[in-house]
Amino acid sequence: MSALRILVFLGSTREGRHGENVAKYVVNVLKNKKHNVELIDPLTLGSDGHVYQPLQFRRDLNEAPEWMLETNSKIKNANALIIVTPEYNCALPPALTSMMDQFPPASYKHRPCAIVCYSMGPFGGIRAASFARPFLSELGLVSVPKVCVVPEVQGKFNDEGQCLDDRVKANMEKLVDEIQWYGSAISNKIKADGVPS
Amino acid sequence: MSALRILVFLGSTREGRHGENVAKYVVNVLKNKKHNVELIDPLTLGSDGHVYQPLQFRRDLNEAPEWMLETNSKIKNANALIIVTPEYNCALPPALTSMMDQFPPASYKHRPCAIVCYSMGPFGGIRAASFARPFLSELGLVSVPKVCVVPEVQGKFNDEGQCLDDRVKANMEKLVDEIQWYGSAISNKIKADGVPS
Amino acid sequence: MSALRILVFLGSTREGRHGENVAKYVVNVLKNKKHNVELIDPLTLGSDGHVYQPLQFRRDLNEAPEWMLETNSKIKNANALIIVTPEYNCALPPALTSMMDQFPPASYKHRPCAIVCYSMGPFGGIRAASFARPFLSELGLVSVPKVCVVPEVQGKFNDEGQCLDDRVKANMEKLVDEIQWYGSAISNKIKADGVPS
Amino acid sequence: MSALRILVFLGSTREGRHGENVAKYVVNVLKNKKHNVELIDPLTLGSDGHVYQPLQFRRDLNEAPEWMLETNSKIKNANALIIVTPEYNCALPPALTSMMDQFPPASYKHRPCAIVCYSMGPFGGIRAASFARPFLSELGLVSVPKVCVVPEVQGKFNDEGQCLDDRVKANMEKLVDEIQWYGSAISNKIKADGVPS
Repeated sequence: MSALRILVFLGSTREGRHGENVAKYVVNVLKNKKHNVELIDPLTLGSDGHVYQPLQFRRDLNEAPEWMLETNSKIKNANALIIVTPEYNCALPPALTSMMDQFPPASYKHRPCAIVCYSMGPFGGIRAASFARPFLSELGLVSVPKVCVVPEVQGKFNDEGQCLDDRVKANMEKLVDEIQWYGSAISNKIKADGVPS
Repeated sequence: MSALRILVFLGSTREGRHGENVAKYVVNVLKNKKHNVELIDPLTLGSDGHVYQPLQFRRDLNEAPEWMLETNSKIKNANALIIVTPEYNCALPPALTSMMDQFPPASYKHRPCAIVCYSMGPFGGIRAASFARPFLSELGLVSVPKVCVVPEVQGKFNDEGQCLDDRVKANMEKLVDEIQWYGSAISNKIKADGVPS
Repeated sequence: MSALRILVFLGSTREGRHGENVAKYVVNVLKNKKHNVELIDPLTLGSDGHVYQPLQFRRDLNEAPEWMLETNSKIKNANALIIVTPEYNCALPPALTSMMDQFPPASYKHRPCAIVCYSMGPFGGIRAASFARPFLSELGLVSVPKVCVVPEVQGKFNDEGQCLDDRVKANMEKLVDEIQWYGSAISNKIKADGVPS
Repeated sequence: MSALRILVFLGSTREGRHGENVAKYVVNVLKNKKHNVELIDPLTLGSDGHVYQPLQFRRDLNEAPEWMLETNSKIKNANALIIVTPEYNCALPPALTSMMDQFPPASYKHRPCAIVCYSMGPFGGIRAASFARPFLSELGLVSVPKVCVVPEVQGKFNDEGQCLDDRVKANMEKLVDEIQWYGSAISNKIKADGVPS
């Protein structure tokens, strides 16, 4: 298994957000497997949360903010993505969509993407995971079957990015297996034949 | 038909957004029918686009920003809502969700809400309208059946908030009929019996 | 509170389906409140499960099967609906859609509809509830905010249509309150002013 | 490019269904590219349209109907799937879900799946395509980014399975390119490393 370049998108800007520790854990798991991982955090990305103009609709790329061009390069350079997402009012959180909407589908296209969802209640944000499917597909991403659902997220992760729950750990292993598998399958295919026309 | 207090939520912050003229038109139609209408615009609301903490999760309401408390009062005081929404990557636009997520379901509850969706392409943002249904329901709103779908929005509205397309005008009439009808049905019921327990 | 005519649609044809007891319980709760209730069961409806031609697309209504015309009359005569639905593979169950798709939106229009969802797992079919929103809206129904979610349905109901779980019972009370409230609000409005144009 | 075994699932049982000619066309395009293709048609599958018990929940496989075991083998033996789906009332058609729900996710798992959607109106069933994403993912399939959307389907296909519309033909080419590409990428990976654990 060769190392992949993986971006982890965190879909929350909420004070006291639980997703931060979930994302840290995801990053740690991936680093332990020797992948090159970077967290994309909406609070430090550089955007104020509004989508004023996605990159692909800008006439003059020289006027695009630096963070936008840099993050776009990271996306194009990635082999795989993972989103870590809560659920807000039975919809995708704006922290996730406002971040990912900034960049062109052309940059995301044909990368596998895995979904980790969480909530403080019993349903674990499972509806956000299902609404994420058409969103990720429209961006050109290919979402892998496995979802890691984390109900009652509070207390299951610590600030060091460790997970304290065996069921979640086992599910995360499977999810990472899948993203590695698809990341490798697609990277190999691109190397051999390029992307689909 | 007595006058209703109606809020129109605009779901775009994009430069050159077409939704602004669509929303102006909606406001005009409602004003012509003598309703009290106010546009809630994410660009002037006071939020920077991030959801740091929805009102209902704040411990100390005195620390909540003024715009949040004021808008919350407007929502609680409204008889009906209309959302004017584009579609971003097969999902609800973050401009809409980040605005509406700021306020408690308790404030929205049992108001009828109508959906106007638009896009520059042939599908008119119809998928955003369908994803809006569970979102609005989770906020406690009751979405009325009729949707006003505006494909190829460019050129169908002018800066004075007039609509230049007969099909859209006819559909908007029906949508306004429905929101008035439900607004009145629910207001009458609340006056007679209060809200459901 | 005057009595309403309420139809309960059961969305399962599976052998050993848990929904049958859930639906019996819903019927009992409504009967105890003196409503006129009827269960619409896909296994006894008369259809074989395929949608060959919805009623509104048939040229000659005389050739429509009797069950179709009778059920259509019941829908038009109803003041409110409740669906009792499992979740099949992150989608609405075909037992529900194949039953409801047989009839015209014109027959359903402007009735309130409540959603009861269930599953044998921890998530209670909550995703089916969210996919039901746009489906019910397209049929012209108005889904009320409250959902009664039943996770781990096995053991929570008996064959006499009794519920053995206090949380579910409390939620069902709230759901019935809402459907009564909206059923009454809408019926009153129709009596006073007819339906929206 | 080596030949793939591809199943095409048709999601309509309606009299006069347009999907039949769409599916014939899809089959023809794939055959011209030398793939082994089979159409799975809900009208001739052997099921009466109800899901009485999906294969994975049957205790005794010897009691499972022959069509169920045979089709399950075909699914397990396939390298890729394509669904051809209309949209019924802003939901997936029961003809599609009742057919695919009969079989275990384990049989579908890790096959790429492409979506062709159609309608007689201007929106081409685009909402069904978006609701298909979480459904296909839950079955373990990996839906490829490209969708072939066919608005105003009437007149665009003939009974010989030919397409008369250049835009649709161009889109279908892209879709077939993608399903071949992903089918080959995944098949190669399975041959080299087996499936993800």
